[in-house]
Amino acid sequence: MKEKKSEQGEGVVSHGVFKLDTGADPELDTMDLNIETLGEAKIKSPLTLNFIKGDEIAAFVRDDERLLYDASLRNHRKYVERGQEPPSFESAGPREMIYFDPTKVKVAMVTCGGLCPGMNNVIRSLVLQLWHRYGVRSIFGAKFGYQGFVSQYQHPFIELNPEFVADIHQQGGTVLGSSRGEQTVDEIVDSLERHNINVLFTIGGDGTLRGAMAINEEIKRRGLRIGIIGVPKTIDNDIPYVSRTFGHDTAVDQATIAICAAHVEAKGAPNGVGVVKLMGRHSGYIACKSSIAMREVNVVLIPEQRFEMEGEKGLCAFLERRLASRGHAVIVVAEGAGQGFFHTDSGKAKHDASGNLKLHDIGVYLSDKLKSHFKKIDVPLNLKYIDPSYIIRAAPANSMDAIFCNNLAEHAAHAAMAGKTGMVVGLWYENFTHLPLSVATCNRKVVDLEGDLWRSTVESTGQPTKLRKE
Amino acid sequence: MKEKKSEQGEGVVSHGVFKLDTGADPELDTMDLNIETLGEAKIKSPLTLNFIKGDEIAAFVRDDERLLYDASLRNHRKYVERGQEPPSFESAGPREMIYFDPTKVKVAMVTCGGLCPGMNNVIRSLVLQLWHRYGVRSIFGAKFGYQGFVSQYQHPFIELNPEFVADIHQQGGTVLGSSRGEQTVDEIVDSLERHNINVLFTIGGDGTLRGAMAINEEIKRRGLRIGIIGVPKTIDNDIPYVSRTFGHDTAVDQATIAICAAHVEAKGAPNGVGVVKLMGRHSGYIACKSSIAMREVNVVLIPEQRFEMEGEKGLCAFLERRLASRGHAVIVVAEGAGQGFFHTDSGKAKHDASGNLKLHDIGVYLSDKLKSHFKKIDVPLNLKYIDPSYIIRAAPANSMDAIFCNNLAEHAAHAAMAGKTGMVVGLWYENFTHLPLSVATCNRKVVDLEGDLWRSTVESTGQPTKLRKE
Amino acid sequence: MKEKKSEQGEGVVSHGVFKLDTGADPELDTMDLNIETLGEAKIKSPLTLNFIKGDEIAAFVRDDERLLYDASLRNHRKYVERGQEPPSFESAGPREMIYFDPTKVKVAMVTCGGLCPGMNNVIRSLVLQLWHRYGVRSIFGAKFGYQGFVSQYQHPFIELNPEFVADIHQQGGTVLGSSRGEQTVDEIVDSLERHNINVLFTIGGDGTLRGAMAINEEIKRRGLRIGIIGVPKTIDNDIPYVSRTFGHDTAVDQATIAICAAHVEAKGAPNGVGVVKLMGRHSGYIACKSSIAMREVNVVLIPEQRFEMEGEKGLCAFLERRLASRGHAVIVVAEGAGQGFFHTDSGKAKHDASGNLKLHDIGVYLSDKLKSHFKKIDVPLNLKYIDPSYIIRAAPANSMDAIFCNNLAEHAAHAAMAGKTGMVVGLWYENFTHLPLSVATCNRKVVDLEGDLWRSTVESTGQPTKLRKE
Amino acid sequence: MKEKKSEQGEGVVSHGVFKLDTGADPELDTMDLNIETLGEAKIKSPLTLNFIKGDEIAAFVRDDERLLYDASLRNHRKYVERGQEPPSFESAGPREMIYFDPTKVKVAMVTCGGLCPGMNNVIRSLVLQLWHRYGVRSIFGAKFGYQGFVSQYQHPFIELNPEFVADIHQQGGTVLGSSRGEQTVDEIVDSLERHNINVLFTIGGDGTLRGAMAINEEIKRRGLRIGIIGVPKTIDNDIPYVSRTFGHDTAVDQATIAICAAHVEAKGAPNGVGVVKLMGRHSGYIACKSSIAMREVNVVLIPEQRFEMEGEKGLCAFLERRLASRGHAVIVVAEGAGQGFFHTDSGKAKHDASGNLKLHDIGVYLSDKLKSHFKKIDVPLNLKYIDPSYIIRAAPANSMDAIFCNNLAEHAAHAAMAGKTGMVVGLWYENFTHLPLSVATCNRKVVDLEGDLWRSTVESTGQPTKLRKE
Repeated sequence: MKEKKSEQGEGVVSHGVFKLDTGADPELDTMDLNIETLGEAKIKSPLTLNFIKGDEIAAFVRDDERLLYDASLRNHRKYVERGQEPPSFESAGPREMIYFDPTKVKVAMVTCGGLCPGMNNVIRSLVLQLWHRYGVRSIFGAKFGYQGFVSQYQHPFIELNPEFVADIHQQGGTVLGSSRGEQTVDEIVDSLERHNINVLFTIGGDGTLRGAMAINEEIKRRGLRIGIIGVPKTIDNDIPYVSRTFGHDTAVDQATIAICAAHVEAKGAPNGVGVVKLMGRHSGYIACKSSIAMREVNVVLIPEQRFEMEGEKGLCAFLERRLASRGHAVIVVAEGAGQGFFHTDSGKAKHDASGNLKLHDIGVYLSDKLKSHFKKIDVPLNLKYIDPSYIIRAAPANSMDAIFCNNLAEHAAHAAMAGKTGMVVGLWYENFTHLPLSVATCNRKVVDLEGDLWRSTVESTGQPTKLRKE
Repeated sequence: MKEKKSEQGEGVVSHGVFKLDTGADPELDTMDLNIETLGEAKIKSPLTLNFIKGDEIAAFVRDDERLLYDASLRNHRKYVERGQEPPSFESAGPREMIYFDPTKVKVAMVTCGGLCPGMNNVIRSLVLQLWHRYGVRSIFGAKFGYQGFVSQYQHPFIELNPEFVADIHQQGGTVLGSSRGEQTVDEIVDSLERHNINVLFTIGGDGTLRGAMAINEEIKRRGLRIGIIGVPKTIDNDIPYVSRTFGHDTAVDQATIAICAAHVEAKGAPNGVGVVKLMGRHSGYIACKSSIAMREVNVVLIPEQRFEMEGEKGLCAFLERRLASRGHAVIVVAEGAGQGFFHTDSGKAKHDASGNLKLHDIGVYLSDKLKSHFKKIDVPLNLKYIDPSYIIRAAPANSMDAIFCNNLAEHAAHAAMAGKTGMVVGLWYENFTHLPLSVATCNRKVVDLEGDLWRSTVESTGQPTKLRKE
Repeated sequence: MKEKKSEQGEGVVSHGVFKLDTGADPELDTMDLNIETLGEAKIKSPLTLNFIKGDEIAAFVRDDERLLYDASLRNHRKYVERGQEPPSFESAGPREMIYFDPTKVKVAMVTCGGLCPGMNNVIRSLVLQLWHRYGVRSIFGAKFGYQGFVSQYQHPFIELNPEFVADIHQQGGTVLGSSRGEQTVDEIVDSLERHNINVLFTIGGDGTLRGAMAINEEIKRRGLRIGIIGVPKTIDNDIPYVSRTFGHDTAVDQATIAICAAHVEAKGAPNGVGVVKLMGRHSGYIACKSSIAMREVNVVLIPEQRFEMEGEKGLCAFLERRLASRGHAVIVVAEGAGQGFFHTDSGKAKHDASGNLKLHDIGVYLSDKLKSHFKKIDVPLNLKYIDPSYIIRAAPANSMDAIFCNNLAEHAAHAAMAGKTGMVVGLWYENFTHLPLSVATCNRKVVDLEGDLWRSTVESTGQPTKLRKE
Repeated sequence: MKEKKSEQGEGVVSHGVFKLDTGADPELDTMDLNIETLGEAKIKSPLTLNFIKGDEIAAFVRDDERLLYDASLRNHRKYVERGQEPPSFESAGPREMIYFDPTKVKVAMVTCGGLCPGMNNVIRSLVLQLWHRYGVRSIFGAKFGYQGFVSQYQHPFIELNPEFVADIHQQGGTVLGSSRGEQTVDEIVDSLERHNINVLFTIGGDGTLRGAMAINEEIKRRGLRIGIIGVPKTIDNDIPYVSRTFGHDTAVDQATIAICAAHVEAKGAPNGVGVVKLMGRHSGYIACKSSIAMREVNVVLIPEQRFEMEGEKGLCAFLERRLASRGHAVIVVAEGAGQGFFHTDSGKAKHDASGNLKLHDIGVYLSDKLKSHFKKIDVPLNLKYIDPSYIIRAAPANSMDAIFCNNLAEHAAHAAMAGKTGMVVGLWYENFTHLPLSVATCNRKVVDLEGDLWRSTVESTGQPTKLRKE
């Protein structure tokens, strides 16, 4: 796993609220953006669409409809000069010809990793789309993530149909259950073979999608015809070349509640300080956006930017000045921020069952450090620490995420039926796209410290550009 | 401070949702339930009320209107047999004759202790009632609790008027700020004298009201004419002889959000367990009620009932059985529960600045113990711990608390103008009452383990009556 | 149906936020407050309660536990003087001996009339209590109100069990459906007989309870042993001798949203006026309480008080003055207010299928009249009319109503199993009671124009005591 | 005003949830997309940004940074073939050199037309950005729309500063007030001149922006140097070449509450039908999106598609079939739908004070027609009609709209300070753009009946593609 920052994929933040960096990504020129298929699509789609204009009936999408990676005029000109075709993504949508016979295809889906608002919406819309639009009748859910494909756990498949999923979108979490932890690719593919599964939808984050890539490789090695379609799930919104992932907006919404509480607590006591820890292992999008939405935050700390506690330019000194002038303060810290404070001699980082880096608790660390600092300088401090994590991620999807999940699922179903594989459904410039798994997992999208989002964050908090000596 | 349980004052839970224990309280027979006054009320109230029936104009309340402590028929009969008058509380309400000249009276208010939904509503309604109904124009707020009366802190008084308080009820917390920590009674009374304050409204909990009692004693010792009117503030709802305190309902409402998240997390993972720590230092009302409201909780642990972790009847064994049969569980624990686990040889309990017992973190203790127990028996456990505290208490009041706070404040204003002192405004049998400070602080109201609330809680969770060997 | 106002039952407002009128009700002295039973309760209750004190196990309730109608000291003295026993209500709660064999009893429930928050909570808790605590296994729901018992409609019974009701409390409305319209008592009792129903729970309002009374009479006439237990459902909170009905608090909560919108609209335009019509056919509780909760309302109009549009003391003139001084205003009108404007010569009022008086639309009337008045005097007016009715009543119960519904249902189940009949479960002085159907339907509870609620309303709006010439 | 539908600007729906039509717009090739300026920007911006990469400091935006109108690969190729430059929009953002001296510039802002969530957020962020980032100290708000510039109304300017706007974003509506109705352009420009206003921000919809264009023409005619910057405000999201307008997401969110109530009502009665009227004068975006978010809707009717009541393919017949099979239904109708039913011989449409077409009430019409139809065929119908309009538009902005408004305002401030004029701030492909007023008002964006949104809507409701005979 390379942890390198994507300098260009960044900026690509959720639904159009921040300016996109218009510089083309040199890496993308060398990547294969074509989508694998299981074979020729020879079956007429049961969807009653067409290509006629003006009949008030929607159109199918052709495989050669593609969307530029970079829509800046500068990029257009650059490729014109070069005489090359610019990088572009395949457009998602219903195809006129499909690969699988809907009456025979057997479909499975699985949800992996931490909970995220909207998982049930994706499951529900996948089932409804496959059942009602395509007429698929064999739809199964694997229980508790990839464990559901491993015999030792003895989790039976759940049979999915419209009745089963009717009301699930009203609850947070996932009716299929989830789990962390790698499972043997061999066992999973054995299970897919044994159950005659033709399509597997994997709803999960970076680790899950890398797992899906490995499964896809094994499927090809065995010469099987099983489609692997990913729906990227990351509450942190850190999938590269995907401008928005589901659940992220809801998380920002929910996070504002904790910030509001921190603000009320901070104002309610002499030298009151509210510290809120929010999600964001590698990318501080939730911290930045919820802070801008509330505008009551005085410092935002994100994984993308190193900061110092001590020294004239450090956090403690800034907080001293803020309290001296205003008497209260709110600090928002993303969980992945300040991990440098925990580096040890051994230098070995720990990982959890999903292969995610185990993070030290920066919220507790910050709170302790601030308390001891103010004790040392003999200034009273009323610090209240709030860690709302599960409350945020267990929430049901808000309206915008509900719509978004519905669309993601529809496009995932279209791609699967058309015989696409080894891909995820993405969003780019407000259009749904097909993205190879290899591209979606090539790095992580992070907040551009020279981009609009960070500038807006810093402007709304009034914090210094950097909380450290140069 | 005596920590003894009130056997009868209990049952007296928030707004009528649980049966009241009808046994009369032997202690109350010996208590003085009369309200002190500063002197004879000789001024005609500016309120345009009267005693005429049928004119669609509300009535004044007479000082001899009183409400029975115990409304059971059995109690009526008992006192009839004894030929005695049963214990009763003075009714709150506007008096025809008042003590203070509204144009001259100078009023102060102070909020103390932890935040609680509705504090701003009380402040606002006090100001509006005094200003608009009585015509009082000198209203001040002390900043940061009793600190506001102590010169070393240099917090200036805030001048309060309708414009200042116009929108404050939309925010949680208190615009006056609050603080913990005892301040010298002498200094406070010095300050009241120096500023010519005639009435002090203290909005605070058990410790604050005990402080108010000491202030009142000092005032009397000095022969001053300063009224002390308390508005009891306890999110835990643990003031004796008061059936409901403001903010408590809102807290229950907010707590259900955390329980809901715990339930979603528990169902989302194999052997998922959600643990939620809620407020309740001595009294488990919030834990019980929010669990009944949600009905997704499997164990509620409250300070009133001792429980054991180990043994066949202990919590671990219960959880083993629950997970074996259902695969997930939700545990709600009040912060004051299980404090016996932390008793040390020294036996010395610690107290915070307000004189409240410092509690050990039972939520973290429980989570650690459960994790190590299941590790020992080699059963996988996915435990998620949620501690929403500040999010709950920093919320703005919901509609019912907003109305309730308004009424409390109105009655506090009426009592103050009538020259009452050394009292709090209470609620009993859906009627507002005047309660001597000595009665309101004589012990704590706790959940009756043989009452309706606990029975309903145990029935809704399905937990054993006791989680311990006899 | 007598429409007479209860002069004393009034004041009895929702959960303790307003002072109760302490005058005893002369009528009540003449009413029979005893509860009918189907026969001697000879079966030991399966509930593991007892009468032992100190064992942390809840107690059964004895039939002679009763609660005074009037808990004022004055009332106590009056009856002592008279040497009479004061009127009192039988306490609800689990009885040691029950009438029905839980393994054999067959139970039905029905929901009637307009939707109200909490109906599903009552259904759910009834089922859970009967099933899990008593071991009842034959529980049925009649579909669409009393229609469900009438063969022509061909609605089959719904079999109810814990799985069916698991999540229904998260939705508003009623899973059983509801309907208005009288059905023949004979047919209903025929159906009860034919299906061997032993207990019928009727969840409905005034009309439904009167229907239940007629059914009970017919049952007795036929010499049957069928229990009729009512759970009063009135969003308006207008059942006499019951201090609070479920759904009412939630309705107040929801109503504040509409008032808030009206306030925003009023302030957003020159001479902006927001008019909100709220529920309240005969009783203005929702209008009064939601107005106090929001404190942005300038006039509240309720059915209990006549008002005039024209004249110096009328609404139009008041609004002129308000707009001249402040530039905007909010008016809240209960749907039953001002019906006198619609009286015609024929004098014949119309009734809907439930026998409820058909109301004219006072909201539209008011809006039109105000518009034409201001047009006439050539003052620009920006009036926005909001009628949120279904949005309010279709909401799911809030936390407090959820708890309340649970308790009502538990007590209804206890009463039914004990062989009680011809009664409703009530709430009085924060205690659950048994009330004869005849008492619960004897008149309507209305806002006392000389009580605390109306005084508080008028004070918070600043409107004149009366909007009419004397 | 031309009312013509934009065939291509469509599809361009809110924040990336629906596929964009990739066909280039022939009209756009002929439009001037360049932005007017007041003169050369010669003053160094006070913002501490730069063009250095890697210093963690954000960059200025150059005037030649532009974004393609059409990011499809097909479009790229087309213009390559033609050897032309494709249409593109100027990028928004802070400029290195500005036109106005921040210490001397005098700025005004005005809000016009109907309320929309987020107006206060835009006002607040404009003030904060101008004040804190640029150091502007003369900021004024005109009261009640363009009336604020017309002397006869005598509305004084409001002086705006950070303290004044501190908490306004927590309320819906606009603190400046709004109004409809055209005012004389001459008078407005006179007022701008008289008050020495250098920049006017107009926050309003189609009519307001057309007004702004006229003002701009008059300013140029008089040779003045006054910048006119629009922030498009349309809850319906119908501005062409702008993919999203503020408040629209919040409106969709709020609309789901009404739909939910309709669903509960529909299921609660035999043959229950809930009819919800939503905003959408010309464009059905709110109706479509809220229906997809809820997925409980059975028919969506929008202005873009003609439908019939009668006939085998009409709405009545569809509803008959739906009720026969499922027993309940929910209909969502945009206010502008079905206006053809009201066409009269005179053919003269009426307009309101803002020049908007006066719509007939299609919700009431539908309800009446359906009731009479079912009466005629003697099928019982329980129809509940919900019209939540003001409740939706008076709501405060949700988190995403709060962030979006903040960004719009920041970019509007940057554009104004740089001396841009005659433009609005737009959003395109998730990037903020500058759009000439002439382009933003050239037509209306409508739902593409052959696009993704309508297809998704029809799929989620299960309604026929068309409710009419061909």
